[in-house]
Amino acid sequence: MKLVTYRYEGRESLGALDTERNVIREVTGPGGMDSGADLQTLIRRWDALPAGRPPVNGTEIPLDAVTLRAPMPRPSRNIFCVGKNYHDHSAEFAGSGFDGSDDGTGNPSGVPALPIFFTKATGSVIGPGEVIEPHAGVTDALDYEVELAVIIGTGGRGISKEDSWRHIWGYTIINDVTARDLQRDHKQWFLGKSLDTFCPMGPWAVTADEVEPTNLTVECWVNGELRQSSNTRDLIFDIPTLISTLSAGITLQPGDIIATGTPAGVGLGFDPPRFLRPGDVVSMRIGELGTLTNPIGPLTRPDP
Amino acid sequence: MKLVTYRYEGRESLGALDTERNVIREVTGPGGMDSGADLQTLIRRWDALPAGRPPVNGTEIPLDAVTLRAPMPRPSRNIFCVGKNYHDHSAEFAGSGFDGSDDGTGNPSGVPALPIFFTKATGSVIGPGEVIEPHAGVTDALDYEVELAVIIGTGGRGISKEDSWRHIWGYTIINDVTARDLQRDHKQWFLGKSLDTFCPMGPWAVTADEVEPTNLTVECWVNGELRQSSNTRDLIFDIPTLISTLSAGITLQPGDIIATGTPAGVGLGFDPPRFLRPGDVVSMRIGELGTLTNPIGPLTRPDP
Repeated sequence: MKLVTYRYEGRESLGALDTERNVIREVTGPGGMDSGADLQTLIRRWDALPAGRPPVNGTEIPLDAVTLRAPMPRPSRNIFCVGKNYHDHSAEFAGSGFDGSDDGTGNPSGVPALPIFFTKATGSVIGPGEVIEPHAGVTDALDYEVELAVIIGTGGRGISKEDSWRHIWGYTIINDVTARDLQRDHKQWFLGKSLDTFCPMGPWAVTADEVEPTNLTVECWVNGELRQSSNTRDLIFDIPTLISTLSAGITLQPGDIIATGTPAGVGLGFDPPRFLRPGDVVSMRIGELGTLTNPIGPLTRPDP
Repeated sequence: MKLVTYRYEGRESLGALDTERNVIREVTGPGGMDSGADLQTLIRRWDALPAGRPPVNGTEIPLDAVTLRAPMPRPSRNIFCVGKNYHDHSAEFAGSGFDGSDDGTGNPSGVPALPIFFTKATGSVIGPGEVIEPHAGVTDALDYEVELAVIIGTGGRGISKEDSWRHIWGYTIINDVTARDLQRDHKQWFLGKSLDTFCPMGPWAVTADEVEPTNLTVECWVNGELRQSSNTRDLIFDIPTLISTLSAGITLQPGDIIATGTPAGVGLGFDPPRFLRPGDVVSMRIGELGTLTNPIGPLTRPDP
């Protein structure tokens, strides 16, 4: 099942998407789900849904009649993120001079011994088609990162690798937009990862039963040029390892989002780096999770 | 004004605390504030409060009749934190071998050129008197950090240093509990800072008009032994610098919490390190913000 958060006729709703016919049916009805409920609330109640699926309105709305938002526009806490989790990207990052956390002990492969976790602030989330702000005057090194994002269903602590799959509700795509200069200069990565609009998410969320997460193509284009092309089978730390490592001491909650890292081909990997500029368009696709496209906005902020 | 979140007669409420008479009056009444409203909601509505202060119930409840919780038990996003923000602590940390983000370029003072930001997961927040879990099997290097925490009132982006004070609603104390081994081994600090119970907060929140934040004693005791003793005037990056740096690209929201860093005297600063053990008691006091005391729990988790 594919879930979208969308605006239609001035109202934000949650809907079930039929990608063959490109129509949406609003998630609604009795049994605890109010019209307009958000995805995080739905996920919390998912196991109690009468038919194992949320009730939907009979009326079909054409996909092209709505404005898609991020599937989870207002997460209840920061997005969990993983750094340097593809071999090829670890190498390009290690050699870039932008890794402020590099301990200088001579690890040219850049492959970490343990997963590296950081977060993106909730306010950075935007939806498909929304503008990524260039933040002129704050950064001169705007970069993209296509990432498979895991959405937690059943929370818990001390989740074993074996049990981890049943704690996953579904998946979406995240563009882990990064200000490389801030990431480097402030040592810890949070600031450079969390500027407003730095977390495009979507275009929809797909339930786990429809996804084979260990074998998904991961691709990213800038202005139509393929920059990143990989597969989730190249993850250094697989999804069960990430969930078990995080949950060893942190109780995961329904709706928690874990962005699993990006493969090679980001802007800093080029010599000289090819950072994003106003007017560029970034598109990313992961398996059958859809295509997430966002333009880089103009240098000046639009009037609110 | 001092605000507390407390449990009394099976219900969680927000109250105004009189520290001279040790009584609480519940925040309640008409005008949008429902009984039991949380502090974050109150802060969002603060500027619209009729008398500039929340209405309170006439009934006095003795402080010792209630169970205090963290003033903001469920923040709407992760706690913003600042690393290495006192000169003496920067030096002790740089020499400890636990700074996984050290770039090895020879900076024995450890003083960062720019503020270092990371976050603590929301689920780590606990209140005064609550047990800090030792997380046996996950960490062997449990440490304490007393920190002045700023609570944002009016949100915004691009806040200048000059304007920053008027964006502050108030202050509280945070114990930035840290698993030093995870902090070191996972490079980015988030994981080692975010285990369940790793963010004791309180005992209450104090509005900005009652606090002189640039001259507050900052003290921490372990089992009655003074370990940290400093003053906020020794901050490397002052509060206006932290707010202006964060908000340059991140829209701050009402109720956002910024822990401003810890002075010297943490466990890793001793040779050998003096990490916390089950049964230890950590107490911290900052100016007139109260005393925050939490015991370290037993090695096994209590039954839920």
